[in-house]
Amino acid sequence: MTLPDALLDTLRTHFPGDALATGMAERLAYAYDNSRRNALPDAVVFPTSHEQTEALVKACRAHRVPVIGRGRGTNTTGATVPVAGGVVASFERMNRILRIDPDNRLAVVEPGVLNGDLQQALKPHGFFWPPDPSSSPWCSIGGNLACNSAGPRTVKYGSPRENTLGLRAVAGTGEGFRCGTYTSKGATGYDLTRLLIGSEGTLALITEATLKLTPKPSALRTIRATYRDVSAAARAVARIMAQPVTPCALEFIDDVALKLARDYGGDSVPLAGAMLMIEVDGEAETLPSAVDAVSRAARGDGLEDLRVAETAEETQALWSARKALSPAQRTISPNKINEDVVVPVSHLPELVDGIKQLARKHDVLIVSFGHAGNGNLHVNLLPRDESERERAHACLADVFALVISLEGTLSGEHGIGLVKKEFMPLALQPSTLQLMRHVKAAFDPEGILNPGKLLP
Amino acid sequence: MTLPDALLDTLRTHFPGDALATGMAERLAYAYDNSRRNALPDAVVFPTSHEQTEALVKACRAHRVPVIGRGRGTNTTGATVPVAGGVVASFERMNRILRIDPDNRLAVVEPGVLNGDLQQALKPHGFFWPPDPSSSPWCSIGGNLACNSAGPRTVKYGSPRENTLGLRAVAGTGEGFRCGTYTSKGATGYDLTRLLIGSEGTLALITEATLKLTPKPSALRTIRATYRDVSAAARAVARIMAQPVTPCALEFIDDVALKLARDYGGDSVPLAGAMLMIEVDGEAETLPSAVDAVSRAARGDGLEDLRVAETAEETQALWSARKALSPAQRTISPNKINEDVVVPVSHLPELVDGIKQLARKHDVLIVSFGHAGNGNLHVNLLPRDESERERAHACLADVFALVISLEGTLSGEHGIGLVKKEFMPLALQPSTLQLMRHVKAAFDPEGILNPGKLLP
Ligand SMILES: Cc1cc2nc3c(=O)[nH]c(=O)nc-3n(C[C@H](O)[C@H](O)[C@H](O)COP(=O)(O)OP(=O)(O)OC[C@H]3O[C@@H](n4cnc5c(N)ncnc54)[C@H](O)[C@@H]3O)c2cc1C
Ligand SMILES: Cc1cc2nc3c(=O)[nH]c(=O)nc-3n(C[C@H](O)[C@H](O)[C@H](O)COP(=O)(O)OP(=O)(O)OC[C@H]3O[C@@H](n4cnc5c(N)ncnc54)[C@H](O)[C@@H]3O)c2cc1C
Repeated sequence: MTLPDALLDTLRTHFPGDALATGMAERLAYAYDNSRRNALPDAVVFPTSHEQTEALVKACRAHRVPVIGRGRGTNTTGATVPVAGGVVASFERMNRILRIDPDNRLAVVEPGVLNGDLQQALKPHGFFWPPDPSSSPWCSIGGNLACNSAGPRTVKYGSPRENTLGLRAVAGTGEGFRCGTYTSKGATGYDLTRLLIGSEGTLALITEATLKLTPKPSALRTIRATYRDVSAAARAVARIMAQPVTPCALEFIDDVALKLARDYGGDSVPLAGAMLMIEVDGEAETLPSAVDAVSRAARGDGLEDLRVAETAEETQALWSARKALSPAQRTISPNKINEDVVVPVSHLPELVDGIKQLARKHDVLIVSFGHAGNGNLHVNLLPRDESERERAHACLADVFALVISLEGTLSGEHGIGLVKKEFMPLALQPSTLQLMRHVKAAFDPEGILNPGKLLP
Repeated sequence: MTLPDALLDTLRTHFPGDALATGMAERLAYAYDNSRRNALPDAVVFPTSHEQTEALVKACRAHRVPVIGRGRGTNTTGATVPVAGGVVASFERMNRILRIDPDNRLAVVEPGVLNGDLQQALKPHGFFWPPDPSSSPWCSIGGNLACNSAGPRTVKYGSPRENTLGLRAVAGTGEGFRCGTYTSKGATGYDLTRLLIGSEGTLALITEATLKLTPKPSALRTIRATYRDVSAAARAVARIMAQPVTPCALEFIDDVALKLARDYGGDSVPLAGAMLMIEVDGEAETLPSAVDAVSRAARGDGLEDLRVAETAEETQALWSARKALSPAQRTISPNKINEDVVVPVSHLPELVDGIKQLARKHDVLIVSFGHAGNGNLHVNLLPRDESERERAHACLADVFALVISLEGTLSGEHGIGLVKKEFMPLALQPSTLQLMRHVKAAFDPEGILNPGKLLP
């Protein structure tokens, strides 16, 4: 598809100079994301204002041309791949922090602000914005909101849905609107804010966000616990979450992952049946008792070793295994299938056991680690060649079926995008999917916003 | 309007015996709520299952007859008044707690469970469900969810939108559906759960809710601080919220309210320009330092007295003023207009000053108190006769305009219902309202669910 001349003319008026790109080089650069899927857009624009974004969507709507919102393309599900062509709207230049308002515990930002830049800017005020994907230095707030992205801290502080007060956005009609509030609570009509969060650019393009800030605790302590096997570790997770002190990180790493990390990262990585990395935060006076409470819960049948880091260096050493994981996986399989299923924490033992069985049944290497405090496990299938790839895909369907049977769901934080939408009927009833389609139509009657994503 | 015979026949099959009521006595009993508005329904049904609720909505849809969900009718906005007639579905008999699952920090309940009964049932497990309207012993979880109702604890623990994992419901089409998860995070499609929360029964009838539980801190300390005037107290609120220790209650009471409460409640109520009631919770070891931090912030220009209760009796004595308030108001005005506006906390001083001015300008008695930590003020206009009533209504419009000018919104927790919907265009742009109408149509194409509420 090439864009109609009339549309290109309109776009040129609203996106002068290098704010519009139609050359092959730029189109190629915005054809893919971290999913490694790939499809050429017909043009790329770089909005820097809400009004420009309205003009963009209005023009594309008139010509029934797709518009794909894009932050930094770090998503893992193909959510920004322009499978039906059209115009990619990259918000990377719309990246101002408009207001930091510690008194009201809020910040107002444009969508292109990087998560890491925001955290840096908040630090001197003693606040942070809880969502903390590992990609924090490279991903945008717009992307975080559109995916409901989370991270280790979510177990204590929640995901974007719990940490956003209001939004400004442009619907698929080209109409701009504001929703939500500047206040920490509100009951004035439907909650469109949360509806947009996690909608992966299929309902509206976000042009401004009012984020709820949290005071940054002044102290943090890291605990590393190793266990005889994955079940013992998973049972410890359930025990930790069943007592009142909630850790601010509770990460699980299985035996296969530990072995991989040790091959890559060296001796500082312990060999064990499974490992938990736990962080507890608070104020200096109160931290020791919190660490005690969490450590008590971490102990139990199958614990092999429990260490509390006393210095910054020790903390770093404890995290080395976790850090070595991502690069280590790439050395085995460039085609890893990275899922982020989630189950209620008490079902984590059954999930990790079940995954071990499926790995054996389908004869694929599976590495599991993740945000165990939320029951959110990154299940990485690492096929080494074509035949293993086929087996991995068969295994994946079994993994999802297992997760659903354990009251879990397809994604904890990565979203659905392109790669998981065929599995949506596993997780959602036909009537729920039908309502989602109606909601989509309510915001985007022509279906021009990020077509082919999220809904099967 | 009388119901078509065919509909009555269908209803009788699905609601045998006293599960269907059409007598005048029952219709009268379900004609009103705490708003004192009033309109007769044509019938009342008492569902006890999801399937029955589906059958009800399907039957009413076929005849284009309104269905009004009802918990216990304690809402203050006329949200359950059947202004277009139809069938009231009272969930009071669908009141089982289906599951309490401390390991996964969740409870599954039917909509008719009373908030207070749930809290009692959770106590032995060491958990609570944070939303805590003062009406807790008499209001239902279904009503709490439908209104996004909150209370003093919301300042620290959030409203229903932050404390609900998933729902089962019946849309206006009569189709049942599930949305949300049993997990503490998820990114699987649109967030229909939060969309239903606060939708006041206009999108779907809730038949089951999966609630997120919070561990109950083991200790609580109450602080009472009195100030020279309302501005000084409001500034203290802003200071308290700008430091890291978040109190679990931060209630404001103005001078007029204090005087009223003293007339009614006696000498234990202090006379002052304004008062803050503050609660801090935590574990026994950590509480003293938290109380110190909050007390430090509460001190400042205009503080007159600050007391920390050391015993249960002292705590009760400190709360006596707050408790005496509601009955005291009724002695003055049976027609009080009770608003619950909300502004960012740093604008609270301007709000309380502005309200004082408006009370003088319109010559009406206004009593303000409320959940100051959220910037949520209950503004009670107390007209004593007909001419004062007219002045009060004029004043109300000015109050809303003031709130909007301070970046606030119409309702913090009571919702919109019948009585505030005409003011919605003050708070929301036409494009936002239009999207809300589209969302309404997506769930309820015939507009049979609670017609005449929420949307102007
Ligand atoms: C090394 C690495 C580590 C990661 N770790 C995590 C992790 O710990 N937790 C986690 O949750 N994710 C993680 N991710 C995934 C990814 O970083 C997140 O999903 C992130 O939020 C995407 O942000 P982005 O700016 O790159 O968005 P993009 O990838 O550009 O876009 C993602 C989605 O958001 C939409 N979108 C973007 N901007 C807007 C806008 N303004 N309006 C409307 N829609 C918009 C897009 O259309 C798309 O659907 C990781 C990725 C990498 C590469
Ligand atoms: C003395 C008193 C004190 C109060 N204090 C507070 C307070 O501190 N904070 C606060 O927020 N509110 C307060 N309220 C208001 C009221 O108690 C709350 O709004 C409460 O949540 C209403 O619950 P209910 O069961 O009475 O619902 P109802 O009044 O019966 O219904 C309220 C709304 O919910 C809808 N609804 C009810 N059940 C369902 C269902 N199953 N599915 C779909 N929709 C449904 C109704 O259609 C209606 O729109 C107070 C009221 C009183 C009388």
